[in-house]
Amino acid sequence: MKTKDKLSKNQLRRFPEYLNFLRKCEETGIHFVNAQMMADALNLNQEQVRKDIAAVSTVSGVPNRGRNVIQLIKDIEVVLGYDETHNAILVGVGSLGKALLNYDGFKAFGLTIIAAFDPREELVGATINEVRVYDTHRMCGTLKNFDAHIGIICVPGAVAQSVADELVDNGIEAIWNFAPVRLNLPANIIVSNMNMATSLAELSHKLYLKREKEKN
Amino acid sequence: MKTKDKLSKNQLRRFPEYLNFLRKCEETGIHFVNAQMMADALNLNQEQVRKDIAAVSTVSGVPNRGRNVIQLIKDIEVVLGYDETHNAILVGVGSLGKALLNYDGFKAFGLTIIAAFDPREELVGATINEVRVYDTHRMCGTLKNFDAHIGIICVPGAVAQSVADELVDNGIEAIWNFAPVRLNLPANIIVSNMNMATSLAELSHKLYLKREKEKN
Repeated sequence: MKTKDKLSKNQLRRFPEYLNFLRKCEETGIHFVNAQMMADALNLNQEQVRKDIAAVSTVSGVPNRGRNVIQLIKDIEVVLGYDETHNAILVGVGSLGKALLNYDGFKAFGLTIIAAFDPREELVGATINEVRVYDTHRMCGTLKNFDAHIGIICVPGAVAQSVADELVDNGIEAIWNFAPVRLNLPANIIVSNMNMATSLAELSHKLYLKREKEKN
Repeated sequence: MKTKDKLSKNQLRRFPEYLNFLRKCEETGIHFVNAQMMADALNLNQEQVRKDIAAVSTVSGVPNRGRNVIQLIKDIEVVLGYDETHNAILVGVGSLGKALLNYDGFKAFGLTIIAAFDPREELVGATINEVRVYDTHRMCGTLKNFDAHIGIICVPGAVAQSVADELVDNGIEAIWNFAPVRLNLPANIIVSNMNMATSLAELSHKLYLKREKEKN
């Protein structure tokens, strides 16, 4: 690994795309790629791709051939933290929580959901896509049995803060928050927010404004 | 409706929360609320809640009681565009697309997915959570049969732009983009981005940086 610097938000958007492209190259039997190929395939600026790759590559390119695909995959996986598998637990098995449990795309990003928690009696003990649902009321005692450091929060906004606090008290280091609230957490806790309700409200509100404009 | 102004990003985060709270009040038989109650329940600043409500309310509060819950629900639904049902079509029935089709939480936001599209033979003709999957190759001819103005894009990044272009050419006015790329679209088209891969990459990269720091 070359860079120990923080990647920019735009790089964090592009790198998973590169990885996806490179894995497909590997499957297809393509062993070398260059920035031009990647830029063309992903509809990006070639110079930008070149810089991104240079920032993470540990090995130089081969003249007339380009970068070694497998090496480049490894380098990007390291910088994105995908080389280590991250175990996560999910709290809140409502319709969004269920959808995430059924989503099989996380493994490609090194994320494995190993347990779920919900307070509802009818869900406790159930298994969704091979993940068992445990009782939220016993989360404090149960969490220690799992080697998880990421908590995915899918509970209603009103209880998200107290769930986050409990996760942090029990050793969770990073929170992926799908609840529509901002969480107040200690500075050493990593938080990434994913707000479906806000995103949809944004879209819907803009449509409303457009309709109002058309009326006048 | 009072305000015809664009809501701020923070308001678009809070209003769906208010709506959720108010709907629960209605179910519980609570007919009046005030800003203090809402702020306490949702862990927000009371003054901010008061301003938000004032910005959308069409009817004043009742002294000593507060705002009428049902009226306030209506006012917020209008400004968020939830009072009209928005029909949407979803393109790309991979694991994320499937998860979204199985997510039953959209109806509360006035969104109904009425059809899905995918190029894979084994998926065409299938029904997922009552939504039929049609052939992407025939999207151009099929789209006209649906009264949909929102397109949800869940295809891989490399093809997202061409899918978006085709949707726009066929009358789609708003795009909810789950693909990990920025789309170039005409100015009159509404776009809201929802990037799971970026959000997870952000979390994972920060964990990587933390681990690197701990090593030194």
